[in-house]
Amino acid sequence: LLINGKPGDAIAVLDRGLQYGDGLFETVAVVDGRPCLWQRHLARLQQGCDRLGIARPDGEQLLAEALQVIGHSPRSVLKIIITRGTGGRGYRPPLDVAPTRILCLAPWPDHPAAAQNQGVVVRICDTRLGDNPRLAGIKHLNRLEQVLAQAEWRDPAVAEGLMLDSAGCVIEGTMSNLFVLNEGRLLTSDLSRCGIAGVMRGLVLEMAASLGLPCAVEEMTLDDLGEADALFLTNSLIGIWPVRALEGREYELQAIPPALVEAVMAQGFRP
Amino acid sequence: LLINGKPGDAIAVLDRGLQYGDGLFETVAVVDGRPCLWQRHLARLQQGCDRLGIARPDGEQLLAEALQVIGHSPRSVLKIIITRGTGGRGYRPPLDVAPTRILCLAPWPDHPAAAQNQGVVVRICDTRLGDNPRLAGIKHLNRLEQVLAQAEWRDPAVAEGLMLDSAGCVIEGTMSNLFVLNEGRLLTSDLSRCGIAGVMRGLVLEMAASLGLPCAVEEMTLDDLGEADALFLTNSLIGIWPVRALEGREYELQAIPPALVEAVMAQGFRP
Repeated sequence: LLINGKPGDAIAVLDRGLQYGDGLFETVAVVDGRPCLWQRHLARLQQGCDRLGIARPDGEQLLAEALQVIGHSPRSVLKIIITRGTGGRGYRPPLDVAPTRILCLAPWPDHPAAAQNQGVVVRICDTRLGDNPRLAGIKHLNRLEQVLAQAEWRDPAVAEGLMLDSAGCVIEGTMSNLFVLNEGRLLTSDLSRCGIAGVMRGLVLEMAASLGLPCAVEEMTLDDLGEADALFLTNSLIGIWPVRALEGREYELQAIPPALVEAVMAQGFRP
Repeated sequence: LLINGKPGDAIAVLDRGLQYGDGLFETVAVVDGRPCLWQRHLARLQQGCDRLGIARPDGEQLLAEALQVIGHSPRSVLKIIITRGTGGRGYRPPLDVAPTRILCLAPWPDHPAAAQNQGVVVRICDTRLGDNPRLAGIKHLNRLEQVLAQAEWRDPAVAEGLMLDSAGCVIEGTMSNLFVLNEGRLLTSDLSRCGIAGVMRGLVLEMAASLGLPCAVEEMTLDDLGEADALFLTNSLIGIWPVRALEGREYELQAIPPALVEAVMAQGFRP
């Protein structure tokens, strides 16, 4: 672990990251000792900082520290946390505070290898996502909704849970974004009111466009899932996971364009 | 500071309190070296633990540690943080984790003494509260909405900002609950979808009932504020603050029943 460039594994109790969840994070795949999709992760982190009014981290410094933390690890997960720092009385963010910068390395997750080829089983969570346009899209540290949603099930055969907003629209998975394929047309949820705009989701949108696949970003209903030919999940560590079954309804894995999957997996995990 | 009963001022980076805001807190007034409304704070903390599935702290141990942290400080603020603890892969809460228990003492806030007698000036915030019935009412660590709301203004003449939900209902202040008085009838917002059910709010509701003052807990609109004879704010450190003006509209301080204010201030800050 590196905290503000120095080795360490603890932060001040008074850090606003702990006190209020006043910060952001990124989860980055490390392949062959290099962080994947680095520019995209950095851009989202900086966008999140702008939204919260936290000073942007320096990109070159962050990359140097990332490589230092990665060391000789060929395949792992790099987590970056930026908090507003320590200080202030109560909720109001102080003007002269120095952000806290934390980088740590975790082992590659032990997801079953079959997920990629045979698809995963998915459920729908009871826990809903609250609306907040000012927090939507960014990967901030207020993640109790995801914690409660993942606590809803412990069956390892179920790989992910989908979350709806309070109006009943389908937004995303607890740790992934969702794409729907219906008659050759892709759809992923609009994230202007809640949800996290995943880096891998962004890559899928770009790759789909470059392959000429129509893709809409708009409201998604449970009916859209029922009518779909195929569903798939995305995040920075899984790339693309086809959905084999959702609450008993089965889907065709073959309907997902192989060219899209290949392009995303190649770009998404290129060191 | 005490962390799990031992002196210290830092917690593990891997603590879920930092990683996800996976925890709760209490802010307790200390008068004559004793925590005020202790049983109410403890009850809300334990209710929050139940809601998040975190093991309840032992009440006697927590009080002993509170008194240890308070030491000889006559008047101060005790902050208690309970996090789910360290561990787990990703959002899913581990089953066998030991919560982290943090107690720290802060100076009594330097609110102007006139607030109590001459009332305060209040604004309406642009930042809205997202709906989430599973998180509503409890004092959890996901507080970015309050941070963004308080960042909206820095004029020290404005003491508090009111927050609406996404439907436009008035819910509470950024750091207080709101009561409306209209023709002798009290109203405070229903907090079943968002907001924090303050300990002082609970005391006001009880004192109003024991004084025979009618008080409704239901949806509150901006029209309710416009039509009100008086408004007041409550929290554990301020007790009751009458509102002198809200966005230019002025209110009568005298309309607030003095017997209610006296009873609440006497009970709320009794060591």
